[in-house]
Amino acid sequence: MKKQVSASDSRTAQTKLVLPPDTNHMGTIFGGTVLSYIDEIAAIAAMKHSRNVVVTASIDTVNFFSSAKVGDILSLEAVVVSTGRTSMEVYVRVECQNMETSGKTLTTTALLTMVAIGADGKPTPVARVSPETEEEQRLSQSAQARKEWRLKINEYAEEM
Amino acid sequence: MKKQVSASDSRTAQTKLVLPPDTNHMGTIFGGTVLSYIDEIAAIAAMKHSRNVVVTASIDTVNFFSSAKVGDILSLEAVVVSTGRTSMEVYVRVECQNMETSGKTLTTTALLTMVAIGADGKPTPVARVSPETEEEQRLSQSAQARKEWRLKINEYAEEM
Amino acid sequence: MKKQVSASDSRTAQTKLVLPPDTNHMGTIFGGTVLSYIDEIAAIAAMKHSRNVVVTASIDTVNFFSSAKVGDILSLEAVVVSTGRTSMEVYVRVECQNMETSGKTLTTTALLTMVAIGADGKPTPVARVSPETEEEQRLSQSAQARKEWRLKINEYAEEM
Amino acid sequence: MKKQVSASDSRTAQTKLVLPPDTNHMGTIFGGTVLSYIDEIAAIAAMKHSRNVVVTASIDTVNFFSSAKVGDILSLEAVVVSTGRTSMEVYVRVECQNMETSGKTLTTTALLTMVAIGADGKPTPVARVSPETEEEQRLSQSAQARKEWRLKINEYAEEM
Amino acid sequence: MKKQVSASDSRTAQTKLVLPPDTNHMGTIFGGTVLSYIDEIAAIAAMKHSRNVVVTASIDTVNFFSSAKVGDILSLEAVVVSTGRTSMEVYVRVECQNMETSGKTLTTTALLTMVAIGADGKPTPVARVSPETEEEQRLSQSAQARKEWRLKINEYAEEM
Amino acid sequence: MKKQVSASDSRTAQTKLVLPPDTNHMGTIFGGTVLSYIDEIAAIAAMKHSRNVVVTASIDTVNFFSSAKVGDILSLEAVVVSTGRTSMEVYVRVECQNMETSGKTLTTTALLTMVAIGADGKPTPVARVSPETEEEQRLSQSAQARKEWRLKINEYAEEM
Ligand SMILES: CC(C)(COP(=O)(O)OP(=O)(O)OC[C@H]1O[C@@H](n2cnc3c(N)ncnc32)[C@H](O)[C@@H]1OP(=O)(O)O)[C@@H](O)C(=O)NCCC(=O)NCCS
Ligand SMILES: CC(C)(COP(=O)(O)OP(=O)(O)OC[C@H]1O[C@@H](n2cnc3c(N)ncnc32)[C@H](O)[C@@H]1OP(=O)(O)O)[C@@H](O)C(=O)NCCC(=O)NCCS
Ligand SMILES: CC(C)(COP(=O)(O)OP(=O)(O)OC[C@H]1O[C@@H](n2cnc3c(N)ncnc32)[C@H](O)[C@@H]1OP(=O)(O)O)[C@@H](O)C(=O)NCCC(=O)NCCS
Ligand SMILES: CC(C)(COP(=O)(O)OP(=O)(O)OC[C@H]1O[C@@H](n2cnc3c(N)ncnc32)[C@H](O)[C@@H]1OP(=O)(O)O)[C@@H](O)C(=O)NCCC(=O)NCCS
Repeated sequence: MKKQVSASDSRTAQTKLVLPPDTNHMGTIFGGTVLSYIDEIAAIAAMKHSRNVVVTASIDTVNFFSSAKVGDILSLEAVVVSTGRTSMEVYVRVECQNMETSGKTLTTTALLTMVAIGADGKPTPVARVSPETEEEQRLSQSAQARKEWRLKINEYAEEM
Repeated sequence: MKKQVSASDSRTAQTKLVLPPDTNHMGTIFGGTVLSYIDEIAAIAAMKHSRNVVVTASIDTVNFFSSAKVGDILSLEAVVVSTGRTSMEVYVRVECQNMETSGKTLTTTALLTMVAIGADGKPTPVARVSPETEEEQRLSQSAQARKEWRLKINEYAEEM
Repeated sequence: MKKQVSASDSRTAQTKLVLPPDTNHMGTIFGGTVLSYIDEIAAIAAMKHSRNVVVTASIDTVNFFSSAKVGDILSLEAVVVSTGRTSMEVYVRVECQNMETSGKTLTTTALLTMVAIGADGKPTPVARVSPETEEEQRLSQSAQARKEWRLKINEYAEEM
Repeated sequence: MKKQVSASDSRTAQTKLVLPPDTNHMGTIFGGTVLSYIDEIAAIAAMKHSRNVVVTASIDTVNFFSSAKVGDILSLEAVVVSTGRTSMEVYVRVECQNMETSGKTLTTTALLTMVAIGADGKPTPVARVSPETEEEQRLSQSAQARKEWRLKINEYAEEM
Repeated sequence: MKKQVSASDSRTAQTKLVLPPDTNHMGTIFGGTVLSYIDEIAAIAAMKHSRNVVVTASIDTVNFFSSAKVGDILSLEAVVVSTGRTSMEVYVRVECQNMETSGKTLTTTALLTMVAIGADGKPTPVARVSPETEEEQRLSQSAQARKEWRLKINEYAEEM
Repeated sequence: MKKQVSASDSRTAQTKLVLPPDTNHMGTIFGGTVLSYIDEIAAIAAMKHSRNVVVTASIDTVNFFSSAKVGDILSLEAVVVSTGRTSMEVYVRVECQNMETSGKTLTTTALLTMVAIGADGKPTPVARVSPETEEEQRLSQSAQARKEWRLKINEYAEEM
């Protein structure tokens, strides 16, 4: 295992055409469909970083800023922004391109935690990520703060 | 529109059998599949509360505590725990039942924000929810705190 | 294996949102889609009763009293109503809830025979079911009569 | 609309390859999958007979005599065997062909009632069917008897 | 293994109803959906000929002459028209039947090469096909010429 | 409409994780699944070039050089390489990345013809493509020759 891997090694791109079965009766895409795309691309990015099978440990935040409709093209991008011992925080960004106006709008941003799983079915160490762009550095530095806020949010959810 | 609706009016139950196409090559269920189930049941609970079409505004936190494998039975439960003007916070809990051992384990908890959409395609007001059980009351009281932490987490994600 | 199991132990609930891909070009749900839901929930109820893997031996009768359209919510309920040596008769009831009118209509009732399968891949004995509600008792008592009529219907089908 | 249509005009054939996602963890096909195939081919046969859109009114009987496993080829055949004013009784027969042994086994037989729907969304009259083979004649003659037994079975189911 | 097998032994028929999820926002069927149907029926025809598992080696040509819309019935027919040592050339023809006009139009023709795979996971010899109808004979005779043109087309594609 | 568009404007990337439901009983991916991916990415590339809805007119050649198995990552890339009046020739290249060995292998190359469709449902003119890389130029120059060979192959197929 390499000690350190560049964030760009995990960067993954995806393009999806919004089709009728992906949409509700208002003709806009289901949250559940976008979530599946996000989980799939985050897993691929984490697999590229860790060179291991991965599982989703948590979805930390997903915001649906705007919707997408039939015939639109979704562009997804995922990159590993911070790493723990066996876990990787993946940032996913979804943009929607409308064919007629050619305009692009931000549809969704998401942060997920993926854990690398070894041949024994147990969490296995991953290389540290070295962020490169300014954006990657900022996300990497704030990782610790996010972890603490998440714990607070979860306190309530877990009590139940 | 009624002014106030009991949390129990939105309570929704779901049972799913884990099948081979839902699982990865380790035979455990995909995060993306569970996320689709969660989004679907949260939407149904929010529709029952608001008597309106709804869209997913955000996934606030999803934790995958343990996995499920082919042949297991997943029990999902969703309930509206707090309301804004047009938004509803839905709590979803997923348990996994193993046929051989009969034991139940907590698989996933999630909090989502759904927004009611009126006939004009715009957010439309919803009745206030009145929590009933102790558990519902605690989740309802902590809603404001969670909202603030979420904003902090999102600051980083949106900047990008 | 327990000798006798209460009908309520197998009772299973399911809620489904009718989505565009589940419907034909008149916007109403496919018979085939409802049949898959019915087979899935009947299997779960029979697995809960027998604590074994099960296979569908026969669909004895399914009536589609009314249809459901996009945006409706289907509530399914299944319960084991009578048992043979290795077979279980499961009753499934499907109701459709319309969001605008809030009214509920009976969509479908069905009776299926599921057989418990042991580790050797062969039919394996199941506990007797003890019906509890009046309704369960009536269905249980008429099981024998239904079996005889089914045999008559099948005579023709099998000859072919 | 023609007054009388030969049974052979509705005869429809289908061939399906059993694939991993269609099967459970014992590697045998789901009842629900076979039911979807049966509903689809019965609808096509009834559409060919009536030259109209059709809906499934009831599944009168389905027997799963044996199973099918991954890699097997299923051959389905459907034919309209009797007609009412707006309804058609369709007989479906499913055989399973194993590639290694080349042997064919009867997997399933089914009888369904489909109803023709006119442009106004209401049931619309269908041509009478004239059975041709001996087998078709026998099924056609016994249609009335089957109808009466079905009514008896349903009495119990509907009461609930 | 038989030395020679009649083309009619591999002849396979399929009927499909065009449903909303198979169509784009103009209500016409996706190329990708028709391609899946073509690959499936070609595989079944080649399995019937070779009595072996098969894989798709190449799609040699597919023409979409006209489209199909929701509610239309597609009839597919596949037959093995020429054989190499381990490969089979399969011809697939798709016609579309419109319920209202009852007219049939040619939708698609395709030629695919399938290869038989033995128990060791390696290509395994197949029986020679003996074409019977005039049409089968012409397609069989021109197989060699097609092979040469294909090689030329591929030169460019592979260079990249 | 712009007169000329750079090939790089249509360049589209896709990453897919090979999952169990996409594979046959030898654990390798279905030709039909890869074909759906190819048709989807080619349509997106052609939509980006033409800023119009497109339909697949033909699959000119698809070669499956090697297979992919569960857990592999497929990288697809599509680009418009030549244009007619209303048609676009799209080149698609699929590579397979194995997680353990990290090696990449060429899985599939394909050439498809997509036609732009205007608001009237008829073929509508597209901008000319200007190839940029050496590879794009070579594919563009050989387009005419490929068209002629295809016509010869099709002569036989259409006669039937
Ligand atoms: C994720 C999982 C492997 C963690 O297992 P565990 O026994 O808690 O392992 P550890 O305590 O060693 O934790 C491993 C890493 O996961 C992280 N982790 C565990 N639970 C987490 C959660 N809810 N959210 C975020 N990260 C989590 C830990 O912080 C640790 O990270 P680090 O190594 O970088 O410090 C385990 O909870 C699991 O299998 N969950 C189900 C995953 C799954 O199948 N998801 C899909 C659908 S349910
Ligand atoms: C959710 C949505 C309707 C909000 O629209 P908007 O123009 O921001 O409307 P408003 O400002 O009036 O906000 C409406 C409610 O949504 C809430 N909201 C908006 N964005 C949110 C976010 N990212 N997270 C949580 N809640 C959010 C607001 O707080 C407000 O709640 P309140 O009425 O209870 O106070 C809009 O962002 C949207 O359509 N998003 C896409 C939803 C979707 O299609 N999801 C599925 C797949 S993309
Ligand atoms: C159902 C099945 C296991 C029965 O096997 P069998 O060799 O006939 O076994 P038995 O004779 O011991 O019968 C076992 C039970 O099934 C019942 N049974 C068998 N065929 C039946 C039918 N067509 N309808 C209803 N019950 C049936 C028997 O009455 C018996 O019940 P009991 O033990 O309560 O008295 C067998 O027919 C089978 O595997 N069918 C395929 C099931 C399947 O895979 N379905 C999904 C798609 S095909
Ligand atoms: C493709 C289609 C629009 C062409 O329509 P048409 O009436 O033949 O139109 P035209 O003669 O004006 O041809 C339009 C373009 O398509 C090309 N074309 C037509 N048939 C073609 C074929 N089989 N292969 C390759 N190109 C073809 C023509 O060469 C022409 O290209 P150009 O404008 O660059 O010179 C029509 O055949 C069609 O709708 N086919 C079905 C497409 C479809 O729905 N596919 C998905 C599943 S069936």
